[in-house]
Amino acid sequence: MALIVQKFGGTSVGTVERIQQVAEKVKKFREKGDDIVVVVSAMSGETNRLIDLAKQISDGEPVPRELDVMVSTGEQVTIALLAMALIKRGVPAVSYTGNQVRILTDSAYNKARILQIDDQKIRADLKAGRVVVVAGFQGVDEHGSITTLGRGGSDTTGVALAAALKADECQIYTDVDGVYTTDPRVVPKAQRLEKITFEEMLEMASLGSKVLQIRSVEFAGKYNVPLRVLHSFQEGPGTLITLDEEESMEQPIISGIAFNRDEAKLTIRGVPDIPGIAFKILGPISAANIEVDMIVQNVSHDNTTDFTFTVHRNDYNNALGVLQKTADELGAREVVGDTNIAKVSIVGVGMRSHAGVASRMFEALAKETINIQMISTSEIKVSVVIEEKYLELAVRALHTAFELDAPSRQGE
Amino acid sequence: MALIVQKFGGTSVGTVERIQQVAEKVKKFREKGDDIVVVVSAMSGETNRLIDLAKQISDGEPVPRELDVMVSTGEQVTIALLAMALIKRGVPAVSYTGNQVRILTDSAYNKARILQIDDQKIRADLKAGRVVVVAGFQGVDEHGSITTLGRGGSDTTGVALAAALKADECQIYTDVDGVYTTDPRVVPKAQRLEKITFEEMLEMASLGSKVLQIRSVEFAGKYNVPLRVLHSFQEGPGTLITLDEEESMEQPIISGIAFNRDEAKLTIRGVPDIPGIAFKILGPISAANIEVDMIVQNVSHDNTTDFTFTVHRNDYNNALGVLQKTADELGAREVVGDTNIAKVSIVGVGMRSHAGVASRMFEALAKETINIQMISTSEIKVSVVIEEKYLELAVRALHTAFELDAPSRQGE
Repeated sequence: MALIVQKFGGTSVGTVERIQQVAEKVKKFREKGDDIVVVVSAMSGETNRLIDLAKQISDGEPVPRELDVMVSTGEQVTIALLAMALIKRGVPAVSYTGNQVRILTDSAYNKARILQIDDQKIRADLKAGRVVVVAGFQGVDEHGSITTLGRGGSDTTGVALAAALKADECQIYTDVDGVYTTDPRVVPKAQRLEKITFEEMLEMASLGSKVLQIRSVEFAGKYNVPLRVLHSFQEGPGTLITLDEEESMEQPIISGIAFNRDEAKLTIRGVPDIPGIAFKILGPISAANIEVDMIVQNVSHDNTTDFTFTVHRNDYNNALGVLQKTADELGAREVVGDTNIAKVSIVGVGMRSHAGVASRMFEALAKETINIQMISTSEIKVSVVIEEKYLELAVRALHTAFELDAPSRQGE
Repeated sequence: MALIVQKFGGTSVGTVERIQQVAEKVKKFREKGDDIVVVVSAMSGETNRLIDLAKQISDGEPVPRELDVMVSTGEQVTIALLAMALIKRGVPAVSYTGNQVRILTDSAYNKARILQIDDQKIRADLKAGRVVVVAGFQGVDEHGSITTLGRGGSDTTGVALAAALKADECQIYTDVDGVYTTDPRVVPKAQRLEKITFEEMLEMASLGSKVLQIRSVEFAGKYNVPLRVLHSFQEGPGTLITLDEEESMEQPIISGIAFNRDEAKLTIRGVPDIPGIAFKILGPISAANIEVDMIVQNVSHDNTTDFTFTVHRNDYNNALGVLQKTADELGAREVVGDTNIAKVSIVGVGMRSHAGVASRMFEALAKETINIQMISTSEIKVSVVIEEKYLELAVRALHTAFELDAPSRQGE
């Protein structure tokens, strides 16, 4: 008998019919003899409706404490509906808000962090044979004020509960049937991964595979909670995310290809190559609250250097203005920028023990005569920036080069 | 400096604009230096929307505990919106759910009763200069489960908070500007009462003047909380409801005329006039969960008697069936019924010290040749049943006879 935490997001509980389907699924697990804790989000659209109301009344800037009082009602409605649907099916169930469980958080309204979870009530209910339905995304601070964990926080609630209860698995139900080697819309031969490590998943997630919230994966990794991504309404084993380093010998070199079209590139040319120049350039960017992703500084010649970095496309114009000002102050030659770029990354813990992974990547891209504009590497990934129009071509070429393509089926 | 509890119902907070208006009103009181606790209902329509959702998922019979978890979110949204609207206006404010205040109730979900209110948090906030916004209609039981007080429960929350805080006044804001001598739609010369006693208000309310929930008036009377009925969006002193017996010398004999078109009359004729006959007739009615209002038994002749009572019109057919069965068993002569009736009552603590009030009533009705079918009296009221079509005529005649008409204004 296992203890399983199951998390269903807003789309999975978006209508009365879907909540009924979720209840059916939970019932089946219960009948297998597992102890089940279910974490649910607000019905899709509900959180935005509430935020809109709050903005209307506050001329756009709702008081954070009161916003959490409002927004938390979204999940509160869902837990009650799911508990009702379970009880109607003869499955004993009880619902709890974050406050009722006592999911203690700090007081950072709208983006609170979980400090501690009281598992007493839940354990007592499980022991009594009840399915426990918990509101995701919310908690309570030490003063008894309601808090929310910020967007996507229901995943975090699920993982934190699984950690507190020492659950055997935390299952995240979503609208995909697992984590894929890359986006199947780009590469039809993309394959579902049986397993992936937390580290790899973090790289995949931060690079644009939006299956799981990064924060919940970090959390799961930190507390070593086995995480499984599954489809809400289809059968299948999904993808298991674990530490599982000991099996890395059998790991393929590369687990997946991630990509991202949301970045833009800025270059400042002919800046004096003196110590502290990187800070002089990036300090003002950071001060303007712009996050920088990749950074490349070319080798110096004539005592000047070129400095290139990428930012989110939404920040491009802002960053360009800041950088131009810096260029004037430093007497740099020029500032150029480009929004027609894309980032492609190969990710895999296997590359740690394999040399030549990067060159195999560059070779595959060269074969397609795709020019590489920037390169950045880490322990378990290699990222390149290329011209955006070559993105799909590059992803497909790499998917094939690293032997990730699914075997052709008959008729294909 | 007074401590005032103000309660705004669903219509008064039905839109963002109206909540802004309520915030303006509260701000004005605050600026006069009063300490303010505001109790609000769910935005109009919201409670029904939530109940509908619950019914959908449970095939019509929602689990009571879970229904309260859902329905309580209605007020939770309103408290946050009002707190935001106040803070935007520079009025420090904080919202609390029933659970956060700690309004302790029994565990009778959907119709819980308040057991105790913890006033600590509220007092601390008032001391710190904050307006405290409390969710009406809800509480929490000793196990930490959310409860609701049932329809109209927000009035009760207001009165209970006023009692717990020993407030100087509990103001109930509504869509009328006070309690009238009778319904102004029937008698244009009806006047707003400056004052009325709890007892009178109870009689007026139960007889069909639906300004206040009966339960909240009972509660206010029990704890002697001065209650004031006011219009949400118009200026004016409203009507004060108090004990105030000492001033009864100045009271008019009659405070108001109440009426009710919702009843139906049933008569069983020729039943043996033996001890226990009333129970034999009304026992089965009560067992069928039908509430009986007026009861009249005529003087016996030939050892048989006629027995007449009224029920709500919705229960008429049901009651007729039950009574027919009883008639057969008792060998009664016949059962007759009538739904074309109306009840008219004169109400006033003044009649205690004045003889001849009833005869003055009968005289006024006789003058209009209105036949009286049933009569029932209590300490502070006289009720008669008449044919429904004479209702307006009767109310106007009594309103004039007891000198309740407003003085004619110019042009009238």
